[in-house]
Amino acid sequence: MATLENLGERKIIELILEQLEKMPQMPIPFGDDVSAVSMENGQLAVLKTDMLVGKTDVPPSMSFWQAARKAVVMNVSDFAAKGVKPIAILVSLGVPPNLRTKDIEEIGKGLNAGAREYGAYIIGGDTNEASDIVISLSVFGKVKEDMVMLRSGAKPENIVAVTGSFGKTAAGLKILLDGFKTQSNVRKILTESVLMPHARLKEGLAWSHTKAVSAAIDSSDGLAWSLHEIARASGVGFLIDRLPIAKEVEAFARINKLDPLELALYGGEEYELVLTVNPKLWSKAEKAVKEVGGRLLPIGKATGTRKIILAVDGVRRVIEPRGWEHFKSDKV
Amino acid sequence: MATLENLGERKIIELILEQLEKMPQMPIPFGDDVSAVSMENGQLAVLKTDMLVGKTDVPPSMSFWQAARKAVVMNVSDFAAKGVKPIAILVSLGVPPNLRTKDIEEIGKGLNAGAREYGAYIIGGDTNEASDIVISLSVFGKVKEDMVMLRSGAKPENIVAVTGSFGKTAAGLKILLDGFKTQSNVRKILTESVLMPHARLKEGLAWSHTKAVSAAIDSSDGLAWSLHEIARASGVGFLIDRLPIAKEVEAFARINKLDPLELALYGGEEYELVLTVNPKLWSKAEKAVKEVGGRLLPIGKATGTRKIILAVDGVRRVIEPRGWEHFKSDKV
Repeated sequence: MATLENLGERKIIELILEQLEKMPQMPIPFGDDVSAVSMENGQLAVLKTDMLVGKTDVPPSMSFWQAARKAVVMNVSDFAAKGVKPIAILVSLGVPPNLRTKDIEEIGKGLNAGAREYGAYIIGGDTNEASDIVISLSVFGKVKEDMVMLRSGAKPENIVAVTGSFGKTAAGLKILLDGFKTQSNVRKILTESVLMPHARLKEGLAWSHTKAVSAAIDSSDGLAWSLHEIARASGVGFLIDRLPIAKEVEAFARINKLDPLELALYGGEEYELVLTVNPKLWSKAEKAVKEVGGRLLPIGKATGTRKIILAVDGVRRVIEPRGWEHFKSDKV
Repeated sequence: MATLENLGERKIIELILEQLEKMPQMPIPFGDDVSAVSMENGQLAVLKTDMLVGKTDVPPSMSFWQAARKAVVMNVSDFAAKGVKPIAILVSLGVPPNLRTKDIEEIGKGLNAGAREYGAYIIGGDTNEASDIVISLSVFGKVKEDMVMLRSGAKPENIVAVTGSFGKTAAGLKILLDGFKTQSNVRKILTESVLMPHARLKEGLAWSHTKAVSAAIDSSDGLAWSLHEIARASGVGFLIDRLPIAKEVEAFARINKLDPLELALYGGEEYELVLTVNPKLWSKAEKAVKEVGGRLLPIGKATGTRKIILAVDGVRRVIEPRGWEHFKSDKV
């Protein structure tokens, strides 16, 4: 019988979903980045849970403080992609018995720092013994139902845009996990992107007011995967012709003879937003994000065919549906 | 430096709490069984997260289906104790790579069965690779603020009551984990109490309407611990003079030369409710729970001194603040 090593995370989620009775009138469908329950006055109670596991999510040089803060960022990033402000966070902590008092204090400080950075508070939680450190967070927020940015609203001719450049975390993970080398100033920027990620919350919240964004997701599983997810949920394809690669990634790739496009497309743990924008409302979306100090970088457009194509210097290639995924033995 | 083995879970929670900025106007204080955020119209959004970990929460003979269902029961039991109906549940699943497709399906079925048993739905979640199975659930519900039953409202002369008899899970765990023996019909009842626990949700919901309950908690860490928690939060003591011990526990204790009181007081993983009732509203509380087919068993009364005393056949002894706790090497 198949074990999880050849199943992959998405297949596991599908297997679980098949067993579940569906709540009537689910305002946000299964498989989007957050879940929700309808409240009074057109409000949604928005919920999200995600688990940081030591073995797979914490590179060797990451401190407990950074790991705890990252657990918050991972979850807030999904709220950002949906345009929902996080209000309160619960912590479910699995701790191996050999952890020290100091480590626990660091975890507490990192959780608080992450929450306050995005205007939320830790309001409760629980702890359990576990073989490996596990920081499972649940985030709660509220939003008007018509302001949520789902994965499923992209339309052909919509502009595809992102909030920043790509590839830094993929390169940073190669440095931290596989010992790749680069210049010290570049190394610092690339490893910082892994150790101190940031969620694009102010951008997501700014856009939720504009109604300009037809679909959105974060890029935590890699840009390629994010594009495929929006494509699948919306029934569109994409032509990407201006892929913003961080200049540090170009430098790192040159020295290590790697393909910078590969790093930018198929990395992961990178918390930019990927969105589609109604072209008529582009300037409104641009203005809204500039007001909060963020960026809206067009990278291509949505198309009517289901293909996802990258065009570089006139050469077209298919962007494959792969990215950052645990378990799968063929992962990048 | 101290490691967690001699710290214990509560100390870990304290260490974390010390690092956190407190949300202004928290409607339910840190340390109660659930957390909450104030909404419009005097409503609270109620949140709870708790983690089931294979190594510490799943006895060898428990199936994946039962483990997943138990993860739901653990969380719903806390909602029950607060008088809050669970609406939606999110799952954060940590899975070891050697799990099979069939195991995952069983987990999905168990989660759904648990949720539907209590009228809730699983509405989302995530999965991650982990060294041990981890089922971390987040539960969401709504309640009118003045209907929540906190730990902190017990007053001297209030009647202490419970929803059922005690000791079955402590005995059941001794059978499942330590190989203790007993008659087969008794064995079945005791082990079932561990493998198929039930949350007293209908009882808790019935009482939340009566305003008769001044404080409540579940007995998941053992009856003794629950009494100490209410005592600490409310600033009272207790005199317990009618401790209901399950007859199967008496039989099991006799055969194995164990103290049935020890099993009833200091067990754990037992999901009865422990509450204090305003004596003037006793019959109202009794009527409400009978209407839903539940029981309200008086076991003693709250006192003005901070001591927690058990009186059996005229002999008084102190009920110690110990119970079911992981990590601690001196645990029961």
